[in-house]
Amino acid sequence: MTEECKITMNTGLRGVTIASTRISDVDGDAGKLIYRGYLVKDLAENASFEEVAYLLLFERMPKAEELAAFKKTLVGRMPIPSEIIDALKTRPRDALPMDILQAGVAMLAHHDPDVRVEGSRDAAIRMGIRLIAGLPTLVAAWDRLRNGRAPVAPLPELGHAANFLYMMSGRIPDEEAASFFDACLVLHAEHSFNASTFAAREVASTRAHMYAAVGAAVGSLSGALHGGANTRVMQMLKEIDTVENIDAYIEKQLGSGGKIMGLGHAVYKVDDPRALILAPMSRRMGERIGEVKWYEISRRLEEKAKAAFKRHKDMDIYVNVDFYSASLYYAMGIAMDLFTPIFAISRVAGWAAHVLEEQFAGAAPKPMLYRPESEYIGDYCGPEACAWEPIDRR
Amino acid sequence: MTEECKITMNTGLRGVTIASTRISDVDGDAGKLIYRGYLVKDLAENASFEEVAYLLLFERMPKAEELAAFKKTLVGRMPIPSEIIDALKTRPRDALPMDILQAGVAMLAHHDPDVRVEGSRDAAIRMGIRLIAGLPTLVAAWDRLRNGRAPVAPLPELGHAANFLYMMSGRIPDEEAASFFDACLVLHAEHSFNASTFAAREVASTRAHMYAAVGAAVGSLSGALHGGANTRVMQMLKEIDTVENIDAYIEKQLGSGGKIMGLGHAVYKVDDPRALILAPMSRRMGERIGEVKWYEISRRLEEKAKAAFKRHKDMDIYVNVDFYSASLYYAMGIAMDLFTPIFAISRVAGWAAHVLEEQFAGAAPKPMLYRPESEYIGDYCGPEACAWEPIDRR
Repeated sequence: MTEECKITMNTGLRGVTIASTRISDVDGDAGKLIYRGYLVKDLAENASFEEVAYLLLFERMPKAEELAAFKKTLVGRMPIPSEIIDALKTRPRDALPMDILQAGVAMLAHHDPDVRVEGSRDAAIRMGIRLIAGLPTLVAAWDRLRNGRAPVAPLPELGHAANFLYMMSGRIPDEEAASFFDACLVLHAEHSFNASTFAAREVASTRAHMYAAVGAAVGSLSGALHGGANTRVMQMLKEIDTVENIDAYIEKQLGSGGKIMGLGHAVYKVDDPRALILAPMSRRMGERIGEVKWYEISRRLEEKAKAAFKRHKDMDIYVNVDFYSASLYYAMGIAMDLFTPIFAISRVAGWAAHVLEEQFAGAAPKPMLYRPESEYIGDYCGPEACAWEPIDRR
Repeated sequence: MTEECKITMNTGLRGVTIASTRISDVDGDAGKLIYRGYLVKDLAENASFEEVAYLLLFERMPKAEELAAFKKTLVGRMPIPSEIIDALKTRPRDALPMDILQAGVAMLAHHDPDVRVEGSRDAAIRMGIRLIAGLPTLVAAWDRLRNGRAPVAPLPELGHAANFLYMMSGRIPDEEAASFFDACLVLHAEHSFNASTFAAREVASTRAHMYAAVGAAVGSLSGALHGGANTRVMQMLKEIDTVENIDAYIEKQLGSGGKIMGLGHAVYKVDDPRALILAPMSRRMGERIGEVKWYEISRRLEEKAKAAFKRHKDMDIYVNVDFYSASLYYAMGIAMDLFTPIFAISRVAGWAAHVLEEQFAGAAPKPMLYRPESEYIGDYCGPEACAWEPIDRR
């Protein structure tokens, strides 16, 4: 290993290109996000989540009849085994939803004979489809169970996004709400080697099955620095509470060296292309429920924070995907602690595509088990190993 | 990023030093493995698993009264909530034990208020202790439930290793069996940035809690190229079945470019120091049950395979930790599909130490969220993004 490589130590592999991929391209300078050749903007405006999931799994856009068949397969896989519902009923109602989801993903594996099929791309695709179909059902069922309500079965005539909203609320959503949520699922479906996707690939590289990899990704997404950020944006908006408090909040954060949740991203050097699509949807949903306040706080906070960071720190900061999705989900009546599980419902399509790539390599050369090196700096007994000392002489 | 760094692309970060650590040192050339300053050989001969877990978590060997208190804490945390037993009863009996364990780890989180405590090293240590205590109980309870037997509660007077064997079989093991199993737990407890530990660190880097990270590690360990290898060694020994078949087996593997399970390791360029300790225990347990055959096949296979690889491929190959643990566990009457869960029961101590280091940084500088870069090689529509085409025109 060269010295140049070594300077990446303890920096979370930031800026280190570790693999080639055909799945997505994040051009942080240009603010472009591409899924398998297609701009996310075009996809959000024109394609359904099912279409995008098909693109991610099969590497091309489906024809009409292929999409119809795929939708039918997905909705057919949505109901989860009743034994999993029974298991969920044993869980404490105040458990964190992401922890429920991590258990739920592993439980789906228990019912799938494909976990024993080795080296089969077809089996891996089937598992990916079961996960894409099963995650909304798990999240919705858990939300109902913890509120003392019986889970609701999906309706075969509804699309993926509408079915999730239906299974959660028990009411069929109107077309606009369903299409907004569908766009959210499209926008969150894939984002190259982010932490949760990297966790999925890392686990898949051992030849563990799709569920094991996705379970790891769910764990990674639950972290405050990753998927947990969207919930925190809403908590921040609630803390600010009125437009009048924005200046004081920014001042406090600037003074304490803290950051503004939802502003700033490891990759984008301009506004996140996804945020630009989410913002108007947040405004519109706010108007529909007669509570445009959270959108307004967001918008003014963005404006003022950008100016303040420029003025005080000479820093350009940009909105990321979490910034406007928070107020949008809130306006849709979704519980704040489900914002991150909803992220998972979408991103699972990307995770599945990455597991397929890791194990069945579209990318050349063939990927290998992740096994980095570390530098031992334990100086417990000087340069030599510690001499053994019996316990009564310590 | 320099060109030198880029040649590590698609090679699973092999040979790339990504972080500093105070937890363990693997000297593959010298065949030395060190846990926080201590040679694993010294630890296996002199220390209990509890003592080693203390060393890994608290960075020094315990004094007598500290070890006594730690043992009491551990055994006190061994019983798992009855609601988890209820959940396990809903699971299909033929589920893969590692998938059960991944669900079980997540379920332990549901009952622990510490998952909501952020930025506390003490809370993380408590979670680590609950996991070290809980994993043996989960594995033993599941093994009994799937065989139609009621789980057995741990006995406060038994050590960690003996309690696992007791909870699994319902019989208190004799001292020799317990001490052999204890040594196995010591030998498997830690091994630097292997794939499962790296998965745990990756998840922990997002500030996800200890259970989320360990759940990911369990997923990673389940892979055939990682923890799944010890089960495969036993499957291989069964396939060979008699000493007379060894030559033909080696010839077949050499001819097909296949490898011999349990021979070869990414790091060691000599025999794995752990294998040298496991081999005589395997022989002794085989003698005790009057079935020394699996040890004998292992020993002869090692000898003959080393010679054959040297002769035909001019390659030096070495035994790794999985090679003799397989026949040892088998002689102890442990079901073959529990070999990997047993690995987890031990390695969880190392995972917990690595999560602590990732989140509360003994190592300097402070680690960051893992977020590597990838190179997009998707040439779906040439250098430009694909133009959007409505579905009826595809």
